Amino acid sequence: MTTGKGRQNDPTRRQRIVDATLEVIAAYGVAATTHRRIAGEAGVPLGSVTYYFESLEALIGAAFLQLAAQSSAHFNARLESAEDRSAAIDAVIDIIAGTIWAKPRTLLLSYELYAFAARHPAVSAVMQQWMDNSRRSLERFFDPLTARALDALVEGIGIHNSIDRAPLDREAIRIIVERIATA
Amino acid sequence: MTTGKGRQNDPTRRQRIVDATLEVIAAYGVAATTHRRIAGEAGVPLGSVTYYFESLEALIGAAFLQLAAQSSAHFNARLESAEDRSAAIDAVIDIIAGTIWAKPRTLLLSYELYAFAARHPAVSAVMQQWMDNSRRSLERFFDPLTARALDALVEGIGIHNSIDRAPLDREAIRIIVERIATA
Repeated sequence: MTTGKGRQNDPTRRQRIVDATLEVIAAYGVAATTHRRIAGEAGVPLGSVTYYFESLEALIGAAFLQLAAQSSAHFNARLESAEDRSAAIDAVIDIIAGTIWAKPRTLLLSYELYAFAARHPAVSAVMQQWMDNSRRSLERFFDPLTARALDALVEGIGIHNSIDRAPLDREAIRIIVERIATA
Repeated sequence: MTTGKGRQNDPTRRQRIVDATLEVIAAYGVAATTHRRIAGEAGVPLGSVTYYFESLEALIGAAFLQLAAQSSAHFNARLESAEDRSAAIDAVIDIIAGTIWAKPRTLLLSYELYAFAARHPAVSAVMQQWMDNSRRSLERFFDPLTARALDALVEGIGIHNSIDRAPLDREAIRIIVERIATA
């Protein structure tokens, strides 16, 4: 057990607690996420968790904010490397078909976030910000409506492909993306 | 407390237990769904829950199967009333914009289902069957790829609109649906 404030102000410890929270949510679901499990996963004393976050809801919110920020960063980085609209279409296909948004862990944590936000409306700001980030990246190449349609398609195909016995392949995804993007 | 088998074989009681399971999942999340809470919600003795379902997982699976069946029935009924492709496009717009798939409770329960299926792969069969049903309805009017794209769009816009500060309206949805459907 640590007690001194100096030790508790260790910024890596706060980060470790947030990381541990996402691990616990992924493993058990947000409804079974407790201070005790988070402390155990982070390897910190229980009091340390309550020291950094005034409530479990605040901590879970911070964890989901990190999830959104990290996923957005990958999404934006892939689109930023595009130099024109055709390259942006390739990027969207990569994002849908690949490993950027639809990683099983990211998907699972997203479902947990969506369910949590439905019960805690303040947390839906995290989802809104995540969508805004994605759309802003897409709007470098596409008009706002097309950007929103592509963002919804990323969401929908990501979810469906993750459990489909025959996921849509890149060529099928390309056909759909081009229909939406060719206004 | 009831004890006789005769009483436990009451088919309305089994149904009440399944209904109560969805209520408990919606209220607390699947990770906090317990036999005790289900029995309380259904107003039946605890032993009655374990009598009808050999495990909590089996009961939760049955509850999600009912969710999928009911949602599919609404989806299919709306599409069945369409007489041609143009009416089917109107139906898809209704489904996305309206009250069929994207009811808050249905969305919340869907997130719970998706997260549960990610942790219990056997339950992903429920999601697969739900998608198959939707696609079959759509394929009366659209080729298979278009049907899958529209189904993904229903999913993605439904989720995004549910939390968006400015949800897409019918006219915006029509533009996107027509782009996808006009192959």
